[in-house]
Amino acid sequence: MRIALTGGSTGIGAEVAKKLTAQGHHVTAFDISEPSENVARWIKTDLNDPSSIAIALTMAEGPFDALINNAGLPPREGLEKVILGVNFFGFRSFLEGFLDKLSEGASIVNVASRAGAQWRENLDEVKALLASSAEEVSGFIEKHEIEHVRAYNLSKEAVIAYTMSQTEAMVARGLRMNSVSPAAVSTGILDDFKAAFGAKAANAIARAGRPGHPQEIADVIVFLASTESAWIKGQDIVIDGGMSAMGMSDALGLNG
Amino acid sequence: MRIALTGGSTGIGAEVAKKLTAQGHHVTAFDISEPSENVARWIKTDLNDPSSIAIALTMAEGPFDALINNAGLPPREGLEKVILGVNFFGFRSFLEGFLDKLSEGASIVNVASRAGAQWRENLDEVKALLASSAEEVSGFIEKHEIEHVRAYNLSKEAVIAYTMSQTEAMVARGLRMNSVSPAAVSTGILDDFKAAFGAKAANAIARAGRPGHPQEIADVIVFLASTESAWIKGQDIVIDGGMSAMGMSDALGLNG
Repeated sequence: MRIALTGGSTGIGAEVAKKLTAQGHHVTAFDISEPSENVARWIKTDLNDPSSIAIALTMAEGPFDALINNAGLPPREGLEKVILGVNFFGFRSFLEGFLDKLSEGASIVNVASRAGAQWRENLDEVKALLASSAEEVSGFIEKHEIEHVRAYNLSKEAVIAYTMSQTEAMVARGLRMNSVSPAAVSTGILDDFKAAFGAKAANAIARAGRPGHPQEIADVIVFLASTESAWIKGQDIVIDGGMSAMGMSDALGLNG
Repeated sequence: MRIALTGGSTGIGAEVAKKLTAQGHHVTAFDISEPSENVARWIKTDLNDPSSIAIALTMAEGPFDALINNAGLPPREGLEKVILGVNFFGFRSFLEGFLDKLSEGASIVNVASRAGAQWRENLDEVKALLASSAEEVSGFIEKHEIEHVRAYNLSKEAVIAYTMSQTEAMVARGLRMNSVSPAAVSTGILDDFKAAFGAKAANAIARAGRPGHPQEIADVIVFLASTESAWIKGQDIVIDGGMSAMGMSDALGLNG
């Protein structure tokens, strides 16, 4: 299969590229940095820059059998504008521009995060973001008083809600789209998450026994990109070693 | 791998057995009827009969690398007692008796249903069922005024909640457990669901384009039984061609 992947040079994306290439697939990576291995083609792409996205879309020759939207920034102080710009606005713009390049039956997989789990509780703010454009990001941040951790969580809440909301449109086009929500993965940005989420993250990791490995997330992404998952549509798959199931069991008084 | 499967003779279970056997795995089926193909061994088991469960557990020689709890009855008038007996009490009793036969790292997959999606809304009744034993089923049905459709939905709500609630206990034992929630699958019991859920089911199927195929559900069950899904724990995976994502997008005013 010919597979498009955003953010293939590090972390989870690098593991996805490695696994797909080992399986004999042709991987085109859209990343601001050049991946050192496991991709057949690299198209330099800055998801925070509309003109860079436009050029990348022109250079990408379809059809592709799957699109994996993996690129994203972690919660880092002072970066709220870039976080919303890359993780949501750039993600959506790239994806929507890419739809015509996908073959019948193609699968789209979006990398959200367990940090986006509260999307229903924050539905009004999520809807406001979905109704906004990239040009409005500064005003949005000011109006909603968004700092970097909230920017990250909101960007991922929006990815989950957007993915679900597009299900009928995807079915009508002969495509399907799902998201994955990893938590606490041992990549180069795990320290950003530990700093952002503090003791809560540390406790969840301790209870699960360890952080997730990036290849464990990649395994699920590759499954969702494959025809083996053909009837899963519009879902968010949580990959967290049980962290959220344990937390929810506590919260609901459901202890086994 | 050596894999234990309840209900391997028809429908989704027969497809699971077929796929696993084709992959070279050794499948032991626990079913009231003998599967005609694709299983290495059949152990006759009536999940509505505690003594049959006890004998089956004695006959099953471990260790097994996965347990797939697939057996279940559809919503059928007059069968509320058997539905709760097989789909929840028999399921739980067999599973808990089977834990010692599972090898380190083994995966347990429970077949719930999209009909169990309201488990949080019905949490009090679900908790009451979880706190009950098989001997109390008649009193439970009377007290909660359970007819056959509610019995089915409640049994599946309980499977989802139970699966989640056992996550920490499973991690402590070196096991993991997840459930799947299919909707409207083209098996021999699809007419039971159409009769039970009426226009709602028909509309959802029309919107998704067709019912699911049993092999599409089997594909996901086999993935969850494999080590490729090792970091997914305590989750319920919905497999419904987008039916619930479309319904939830409507309900939340999230249309793409």
